[in-house]
Amino acid sequence: MTQNIYDQDNFFAGYSRLRRSQEGLAGAPEWASLQAMLPDMTDKRVLDLGCGFGWFCRWAREHHGAAEVLGIDVSEKMLARARVTTSDPAIGYARGDMETLTLARDSYDLVYSSLAFHYIADLARLFGEIHASLAPGGAFVFSVEHPLYTAPSEPGWTESGGRKTWPLDSYLKEGPRRTDWLAKDVLKYHRSLSTYLNTLLATGFTLRYIEEWGPTDAQLAANPALAEERDRPTFLLVSARR
Amino acid sequence: MTQNIYDQDNFFAGYSRLRRSQEGLAGAPEWASLQAMLPDMTDKRVLDLGCGFGWFCRWAREHHGAAEVLGIDVSEKMLARARVTTSDPAIGYARGDMETLTLARDSYDLVYSSLAFHYIADLARLFGEIHASLAPGGAFVFSVEHPLYTAPSEPGWTESGGRKTWPLDSYLKEGPRRTDWLAKDVLKYHRSLSTYLNTLLATGFTLRYIEEWGPTDAQLAANPALAEERDRPTFLLVSARR
Repeated sequence: MTQNIYDQDNFFAGYSRLRRSQEGLAGAPEWASLQAMLPDMTDKRVLDLGCGFGWFCRWAREHHGAAEVLGIDVSEKMLARARVTTSDPAIGYARGDMETLTLARDSYDLVYSSLAFHYIADLARLFGEIHASLAPGGAFVFSVEHPLYTAPSEPGWTESGGRKTWPLDSYLKEGPRRTDWLAKDVLKYHRSLSTYLNTLLATGFTLRYIEEWGPTDAQLAANPALAEERDRPTFLLVSARR
Repeated sequence: MTQNIYDQDNFFAGYSRLRRSQEGLAGAPEWASLQAMLPDMTDKRVLDLGCGFGWFCRWAREHHGAAEVLGIDVSEKMLARARVTTSDPAIGYARGDMETLTLARDSYDLVYSSLAFHYIADLARLFGEIHASLAPGGAFVFSVEHPLYTAPSEPGWTESGGRKTWPLDSYLKEGPRRTDWLAKDVLKYHRSLSTYLNTLLATGFTLRYIEEWGPTDAQLAANPALAEERDRPTFLLVSARR
């Protein structure tokens, strides 16, 4: 069972204050890149795993003509907020734990997930479910926290001699990582970039494109703090096809 | 034109003393993993780019029944030593600079390269040549220095509070890196892991398997110094198919 940190009051309150929670998709700096990896969604069936407040579900339906959209999340609090933002019967929300979830076969044209899989211990099982839930040729597009972000035993930029570096260690030591972000003792699972990709390939997916996200020059000019993303990316974006 | 550091006397002398130069394939800790990614070579046509002393060329021919093997390298000194180790007419050696090399079309069943591509500025051009030189379904298996190894502006393990970390920065800042390894001012090209993979995919290759190499428990017991490879891998191994 997933830790479901999002239903802890202090985490939920903190998460709700983030730009990406307040402003939705446009508040996430990596969104433009992730969006560029999406297929045409007109009249397509879309599944969003870890849908949170439902920003993507509504966007897919309202702006891109998806036929039906299902958002699944483990957090009751997030689903409650997602549900009050729409009355469209083609958008559905359901509670589910990706650690044990089973999905209907050959039922989706796109499975999407943003920054959720690093909470999951058994990725191979989940990728197998996703593969089987897609129609042949269906798209699988997701982001996760980059392995360089999750790897270190003691994450956090360090400075010496005017040079800021990221103290990498434990990159190939996969498994749980407990960090303090918005709440104490948040449980994530670190895996290497090759494990993400090899798990996809072993499941039967064809790899299309990978992006280790960094800011554009325009984004950097508007938000100089993003410079550190070019030193150590936070987001890994992947596009695959069944 | 490639820097061709291998033909500088001091570099060549230092390189010749490395375990992997003295003992050949078995002297390279990542060899067992790379070997496992190779296809059956019986009666196949094999090309080795950056063949060095020719260890792989001889192994492919003498132990795996390759029909013919061509080794290409930019270093005259290495080719000279490779040539005196065999009189087999099915093994050929030729001088070539991977930066400008053109290859015969549909001519190989396997293109192999070990730790050479990080010296090359124009990888997309070279991958295009390799793709065209392979027969349909042909295999492309290579290793390079891992992007985590080549990225930092000032590489080298740092220690603080009893903890050894790798000072990562500049990961997304691709381009030349000058380091001192066996000789001063050795020129390599850093690129991210996604750039290696996306360049393959854009060329038309299908990705099969990626390994960020780390030691097995047995290797670690025999050589405890390899432990740091689990903190920050040095080698990236890739298997693709035309």
